[in-house]
Amino acid sequence: GNVSTNAEANVQHPLSGFELKAVLRESARDKTIFLHGKVSSGSENCNDAVIILEKTPFQMDTVSSLLKNDPELKLQLKNDIYGVYHLSPSPELNEIKTTVICPASEKHIKKYLQQEVYVIHETEDDYKAITLPYIESQSFSIQWVYNILEKKAEAERIVYENPDPTNGFVLIPDFKWNQKQVEDLYLIAICHQRGIRSLRDLTVDHLPLLKNILEEGKEAILKRYSIHGNKLRIYLHYQPSYYHLHVHFTVLGHDAPGSSVERAHLLCDVIQNIESNPQYYKTRTLTFALREDEALLKKFKELRDI
Amino acid sequence: GNVSTNAEANVQHPLSGFELKAVLRESARDKTIFLHGKVSSGSENCNDAVIILEKTPFQMDTVSSLLKNDPELKLQLKNDIYGVYHLSPSPELNEIKTTVICPASEKHIKKYLQQEVYVIHETEDDYKAITLPYIESQSFSIQWVYNILEKKAEAERIVYENPDPTNGFVLIPDFKWNQKQVEDLYLIAICHQRGIRSLRDLTVDHLPLLKNILEEGKEAILKRYSIHGNKLRIYLHYQPSYYHLHVHFTVLGHDAPGSSVERAHLLCDVIQNIESNPQYYKTRTLTFALREDEALLKKFKELRDI
Repeated sequence: GNVSTNAEANVQHPLSGFELKAVLRESARDKTIFLHGKVSSGSENCNDAVIILEKTPFQMDTVSSLLKNDPELKLQLKNDIYGVYHLSPSPELNEIKTTVICPASEKHIKKYLQQEVYVIHETEDDYKAITLPYIESQSFSIQWVYNILEKKAEAERIVYENPDPTNGFVLIPDFKWNQKQVEDLYLIAICHQRGIRSLRDLTVDHLPLLKNILEEGKEAILKRYSIHGNKLRIYLHYQPSYYHLHVHFTVLGHDAPGSSVERAHLLCDVIQNIESNPQYYKTRTLTFALREDEALLKKFKELRDI
Repeated sequence: GNVSTNAEANVQHPLSGFELKAVLRESARDKTIFLHGKVSSGSENCNDAVIILEKTPFQMDTVSSLLKNDPELKLQLKNDIYGVYHLSPSPELNEIKTTVICPASEKHIKKYLQQEVYVIHETEDDYKAITLPYIESQSFSIQWVYNILEKKAEAERIVYENPDPTNGFVLIPDFKWNQKQVEDLYLIAICHQRGIRSLRDLTVDHLPLLKNILEEGKEAILKRYSIHGNKLRIYLHYQPSYYHLHVHFTVLGHDAPGSSVERAHLLCDVIQNIESNPQYYKTRTLTFALREDEALLKKFKELRDI
């Protein structure tokens, strides 16, 4: 910051008169919390603020100082060679990154609000009665997918193509990947064939397509990025975010969003399941999670006991 | 811990004479660091120790105290309505979870070292020829599991027990969870029956056990933590980290480590697969990832083309 904002910060504490209104979201894994609060910003009115707190990563060069000279430890449990303690570090070794958005609008506050998530066990009947009608009634356009397949958009981004209209596909970097480092490599294979909505539609007829995606996708990634197929997580989503069959390729070391067991289905497992039971994905109860604000959840809540 | 271990901890500081040997692994996202160090454990010899430091998640009930009464803030940057600061909290509001494994063997130290990861597709034959002999030759002790089942350790931590020797289990918080907030709830159900090594051993004989774990586990968590079963991810690992059957319970909003599709198998899917094909897990090719340093990977590399 420059001198004037520094001076300002000294005069008026950015959290003066802080009062907590609500916890908007929290991540125990990331050690972050998003708060809605009121602060008095010097004027007589009390301002809405969004405050984001984040514990900071450990730094290699200071981590020793935390542990030397017998720091204060509280024993939590001991079993054989394992001991768990709580260590109270001196404040300068353990800062918290604090982001203050003030004044915050209604939009800012909503943006950070956590949605509740529910597990759904979708039977064959649920699919026919709830999910399929929902997909068919959806107004969500997948024109952008067709634009890619027809080279009307992103043609220069295509990494590989098998042009066969039935068993072919296009391989393209996902938007989430900036392509600057392979540590978080993320590509998508989009099939040329239209009308395969998801996992639920797959039968033995699609095995040649699925095997092409698996084998040719791995080859293309090895060739372009020098990442071997045995370093890749190759999977479908159920529910997918759009209902035109596509397959995700991510690297194993990277916990890509959507690679959790409640959403991802390994392509090699999908092929194996269809080979041993052609009706597998038609008849099976499929488990996935839906957020409170998703329209499909509303449908399940109306018609089933969630 | 009990009184005697507490007293012991007071006499001999578990980190006395700490000296850092190496940073084994680090995660900026998780705010964790894994260290190899030497500590002097009272005797003249200097012991190898693995020390795991983890910043703790924010707690809803104390987060206000961090922000009230104009805490010390260092301005990092200011732009329009956005300000970023470093806050130095008082130590008791910002503890670090510290796990000490001491004395640590070469195996323990290797376990936490960052490693390359490979996908393995384990056929039925691979299991019989490679994995099963490896498990049987292993020297890893699971005495700590038997200590829990026999109430010789952690008895006061048990959340629920079905004492049936064949179809019963113990439900206990996982070491990774500090039990202070339910946002990262993590419990483990450990079955009483011995000799079920993993998913591979499961048959229709185990359906009553698996259904007890699923249903009674959900009920116990609802009763104790007020978290409904439809908010839980309930799964087994393959490969597991120890070969005595256990099931993981984590909350959906939290991306628990090990919940990725290449390691986790939803318990409801496992039950469904066995019901529709009793030989499912005996005959199936199972896909998982192994780290460079894992002994099982070495076996696969010796005998197969990885």
